[in-house]
Amino acid sequence: MKRIAVLTSGGDAPGMNAAIRAVVRKAIAEGMEVFGINRGYAGMVEGDIFQFDTQGVTNIINRGGTFLQSARYPEFATLEGQLKGIEQLKNKGIEGVVVIGGDGSYHGAMRLTEHGFPAVGLPGTIDNDIVGTDYTIGFDTAVTTAADALDKIRDTAYSHGRTFVVEVMGRNAGDIALWSGIATGADQIIVPEEDFTFKDVVAKVKDGYENKGKKRHIIVLAEGVMKAEEFAAKMKEAGDTSDLRTIDLGHIVRGGTPSVRDRVLASWMGAHAVELLKEGRGGLAIGIHNESLVESPILGTAEEGALFSLDGDKIIVNNPHKARLDFADLARDLTY
Amino acid sequence: MKRIAVLTSGGDAPGMNAAIRAVVRKAIAEGMEVFGINRGYAGMVEGDIFQFDTQGVTNIINRGGTFLQSARYPEFATLEGQLKGIEQLKNKGIEGVVVIGGDGSYHGAMRLTEHGFPAVGLPGTIDNDIVGTDYTIGFDTAVTTAADALDKIRDTAYSHGRTFVVEVMGRNAGDIALWSGIATGADQIIVPEEDFTFKDVVAKVKDGYENKGKKRHIIVLAEGVMKAEEFAAKMKEAGDTSDLRTIDLGHIVRGGTPSVRDRVLASWMGAHAVELLKEGRGGLAIGIHNESLVESPILGTAEEGALFSLDGDKIIVNNPHKARLDFADLARDLTY
Amino acid sequence: MKRIAVLTSGGDAPGMNAAIRAVVRKAIAEGMEVFGINRGYAGMVEGDIFQFDTQGVTNIINRGGTFLQSARYPEFATLEGQLKGIEQLKNKGIEGVVVIGGDGSYHGAMRLTEHGFPAVGLPGTIDNDIVGTDYTIGFDTAVTTAADALDKIRDTAYSHGRTFVVEVMGRNAGDIALWSGIATGADQIIVPEEDFTFKDVVAKVKDGYENKGKKRHIIVLAEGVMKAEEFAAKMKEAGDTSDLRTIDLGHIVRGGTPSVRDRVLASWMGAHAVELLKEGRGGLAIGIHNESLVESPILGTAEEGALFSLDGDKIIVNNPHKARLDFADLARDLTY
Amino acid sequence: MKRIAVLTSGGDAPGMNAAIRAVVRKAIAEGMEVFGINRGYAGMVEGDIFQFDTQGVTNIINRGGTFLQSARYPEFATLEGQLKGIEQLKNKGIEGVVVIGGDGSYHGAMRLTEHGFPAVGLPGTIDNDIVGTDYTIGFDTAVTTAADALDKIRDTAYSHGRTFVVEVMGRNAGDIALWSGIATGADQIIVPEEDFTFKDVVAKVKDGYENKGKKRHIIVLAEGVMKAEEFAAKMKEAGDTSDLRTIDLGHIVRGGTPSVRDRVLASWMGAHAVELLKEGRGGLAIGIHNESLVESPILGTAEEGALFSLDGDKIIVNNPHKARLDFADLARDLTY
Repeated sequence: MKRIAVLTSGGDAPGMNAAIRAVVRKAIAEGMEVFGINRGYAGMVEGDIFQFDTQGVTNIINRGGTFLQSARYPEFATLEGQLKGIEQLKNKGIEGVVVIGGDGSYHGAMRLTEHGFPAVGLPGTIDNDIVGTDYTIGFDTAVTTAADALDKIRDTAYSHGRTFVVEVMGRNAGDIALWSGIATGADQIIVPEEDFTFKDVVAKVKDGYENKGKKRHIIVLAEGVMKAEEFAAKMKEAGDTSDLRTIDLGHIVRGGTPSVRDRVLASWMGAHAVELLKEGRGGLAIGIHNESLVESPILGTAEEGALFSLDGDKIIVNNPHKARLDFADLARDLTY
Repeated sequence: MKRIAVLTSGGDAPGMNAAIRAVVRKAIAEGMEVFGINRGYAGMVEGDIFQFDTQGVTNIINRGGTFLQSARYPEFATLEGQLKGIEQLKNKGIEGVVVIGGDGSYHGAMRLTEHGFPAVGLPGTIDNDIVGTDYTIGFDTAVTTAADALDKIRDTAYSHGRTFVVEVMGRNAGDIALWSGIATGADQIIVPEEDFTFKDVVAKVKDGYENKGKKRHIIVLAEGVMKAEEFAAKMKEAGDTSDLRTIDLGHIVRGGTPSVRDRVLASWMGAHAVELLKEGRGGLAIGIHNESLVESPILGTAEEGALFSLDGDKIIVNNPHKARLDFADLARDLTY
Repeated sequence: MKRIAVLTSGGDAPGMNAAIRAVVRKAIAEGMEVFGINRGYAGMVEGDIFQFDTQGVTNIINRGGTFLQSARYPEFATLEGQLKGIEQLKNKGIEGVVVIGGDGSYHGAMRLTEHGFPAVGLPGTIDNDIVGTDYTIGFDTAVTTAADALDKIRDTAYSHGRTFVVEVMGRNAGDIALWSGIATGADQIIVPEEDFTFKDVVAKVKDGYENKGKKRHIIVLAEGVMKAEEFAAKMKEAGDTSDLRTIDLGHIVRGGTPSVRDRVLASWMGAHAVELLKEGRGGLAIGIHNESLVESPILGTAEEGALFSLDGDKIIVNNPHKARLDFADLARDLTY
Repeated sequence: MKRIAVLTSGGDAPGMNAAIRAVVRKAIAEGMEVFGINRGYAGMVEGDIFQFDTQGVTNIINRGGTFLQSARYPEFATLEGQLKGIEQLKNKGIEGVVVIGGDGSYHGAMRLTEHGFPAVGLPGTIDNDIVGTDYTIGFDTAVTTAADALDKIRDTAYSHGRTFVVEVMGRNAGDIALWSGIATGADQIIVPEEDFTFKDVVAKVKDGYENKGKKRHIIVLAEGVMKAEEFAAKMKEAGDTSDLRTIDLGHIVRGGTPSVRDRVLASWMGAHAVELLKEGRGGLAIGIHNESLVESPILGTAEEGALFSLDGDKIIVNNPHKARLDFADLARDLTY
């Protein structure tokens, strides 16, 4: 392959720029031409595509977000959209594409694979909920940002003897809540992967103040459970009498200078994606597993180790992500 | 004076610990004994008071919040509460008190002054809304934290071509919004000190995307105007068609390691408070004006330069705080 | 004036980019054309000059250093160089120039003034040693970076019971040392503006460990005094027996995301520079004094309030910078 | 086991406090009594040992360094010292000990094992050079701090068109240099694990400025190679003509708030150490390998998977640490 392109899609994540830089630099080092696609699949279909030079990715390794921009683009779910996108790429002589993003991006990459166009997927999302990888690009930064906010909230919670319910992103995954909660000594961590009762939550708050000498109580709540305000209202219904406040960290957690680990992971994966395309290999998603890079077929059966199967038009996720519940136990062991 | 005490009251602010440390260290350096009062006026009335040694304030200069804790305590508004508090202090031989906090704390200091007990007030609040000082302890850190979050939000806003309404604290003052907004190149800053119309806000958003080549739009909203969600709803009513999101930075802005400027200001003011009490001077609030420390009488008339007058039981604020509206003009000049 | 230019010169300082942005944005808002000069006076003489549009300064408000680059350029000290530079500006129709930098930059601006070309100076240096202003652009960030490093060094000093001599920049001024030292509770601060003896330094270290219960000792040393290694060697000669290490923070202190205060100061001064040039006023340096912007004539006599006088070819600094020695006393009061 | 102790030894590392907290909290949760030993093996031999309660480790999870302090203690290399230390532990009824530290600490743990006293080792060092683990506690924070400094240095290097040789810690391992260098887009990374010639280093600098359009050049140098000043001198001998500066990040890299990853790793390992001792298992070092905790025998043969063998009094390291040289290739691929 001599000519490839790169796009980012879905929610932005810190480290996406480092991944783009790696794709561009590695491709040029390998003697390939490399193009950027603006605004994800929308830009692909509209032909919003430009050629990179090496200087085009200078000074972006440490910038948050994605300078190629991202966009939601439901039209790419249609066959017509997909074929139009492939046509735009072929018009420019582009033979393969690196897709950086989360679920939606991977679904797009699956459609490209279905139509025989070589695509390589990189897991770019803060949520750490992508199949085929231990960690996603952006996760380490997101937990760092969340933990930084939790360290700050702890100051003010202690100063006033307050209880805080702090909602963190993560879609249906509890990973951000678990890691940031353990790292900041949160008193309780509530994730979608585990059952809980408000009676127990409230009892633990009460026990902390009355019997354990605690002067504050921090509850980290994964957004996949419910909104912080609803959670707090239900705590009150269940009898909580503490000075209770809520905060939703929201989009703060998506931004910011990527962490070293995310920059290294993004650089490593981005360079590897180019190696695969150079060898003419597409239809693969790159992951990190046990400290090594691995590739999974994007489309196929569970037995083949593929990420997705198709049942007619329905997409089946072969091995859905599961958060580490041993970390939930660890968190409980270390609060008193 | 040979024996003094220190308390923090009202909302916590970064730098309060640095101020406490300065009071303790300076007092001991001057050969005085110094006591800490836990939980503000509540602890004063209850006698929750302990003696410091120099090691008692080691390693706190860079900690957020207040390790003496703070508390709301409406009971101190009663004469009975005030006299009980003074009695507790006198029981321990304490002859003067340093009060660190915002409005409520200053009202308490005013009552102590009224009853002839020497109190010195230090302005500790993130809101920068205290009379008698150009800057409060905690303000510089709060704008730093808010700007850090705005830098992050800008990444994600750009990546998705979105409009964000970001609510920041500040009670009735727009200072945090103005400083953090100017520092991060916010597209609009809405503060309680200035009128605005939703029609203009929405027109500016539209003009940015359509005519100015903007790929995102950040509106910093001071909490004194309204809640971010209400603001966004009214933008939609006024015809906004952009991809609009809200975020409330909330209590994050109260916490965190104090900035250098807040640590220096707190250290300087704390040491000066001890000098005043050592000379037997109470009934004063310390401020910084034109780069020098100044003192204002806490109670008296506007002509005497006092912070408060009493009209029967009603407290009159003699020179209410005003945010710098030249900064609002500056912000407008620098967005395009 | 309809057409102006901006350059940065001398050592880079965080906030220079924010100042450039303000000059560009304000000039365009005022209907002027605005040019950037690369590499300071070198670029001026060589004609390395380009026109800005508003988008040209997007996303730089929070970047450290100066994207216009800076350079030493001794040739501008010659009459020939000066006249050549002015010619280059006039060739492009440029009628005035904003010069952002430290001493060397101001000398250049003085020469432009001497030759009748309108120049406005902005104080951009981390050292805070510029006449005519209470604070320079970059100083607040530099003390923040230095204090951040000192907070880290304190951790390791405590863990090992060690003494550290930490050298910080500041040329002949002790401001960075004083502010960062007070903010981090340094045990000793050594600045060029005050005498000291190694005997006293060593005695204080010994007294701390033996009598005051200290478990570490941090000495902040301004580079204007001597190098850290030399200082440590002299402490050993004077009898120090502690586990003594040195660190030179060096160039780390010059870089980094500018602080809110530096960004606001830079924005404010940059916009004001354009206002002055628009009115046709040159030969002035902008400063901040007592929380307001002030202007000083660049060239004239001390009585006229000018920054510099010329005695033949010799430049006389009319009111040399002095660090606040009351802060040195404050630092001593708060260590025990 | 009902009564255990914990100590930190060797160079301090961010995350040690989080590990201590985990040991204390988990032990108390398991119904054990837990003691802290001050100043490492020195405190063990001197009996400087105290009992913890749960509140004793409040608010330390995010503090750098080690609040138990560390110390070099060559005397523990003697049989007499070792037996005295064990006696002190037994005098207090302590049946097992958790040792947190680097090489020296592990040697001490090996001696305790040799004498039949149950010890569990946790890898606490910034250098990432401990056998039996993919990552050490403190490494992630150290690379974060180094990368933060490199981001700052890049600003100033670019502003002046300079070359910087930046020395980072790591003893004989290049890991900190490799990770921080990749993360910041360093132009060259020099580590002890790879050969290099000054001729090549200088040629690459020259090529960057002359042919690649680079406006700065950053060389990250692992301390295991040589000192930065010596390296720069040899570059000049080899013909470098660029504006060359050096900086030694030194002890800054040891301090600071631990990263989320280090806090989680430390918490996880600390809790696991208690589980092992509770089951009466000692003579083990805990590591993380392929995202799971693993244990290696401290003493035995290479075939048994032990960390160390003894040949008389000589300590043999069975599987010395090796830095990932694929990362050195990655770094070269991504610079142009």
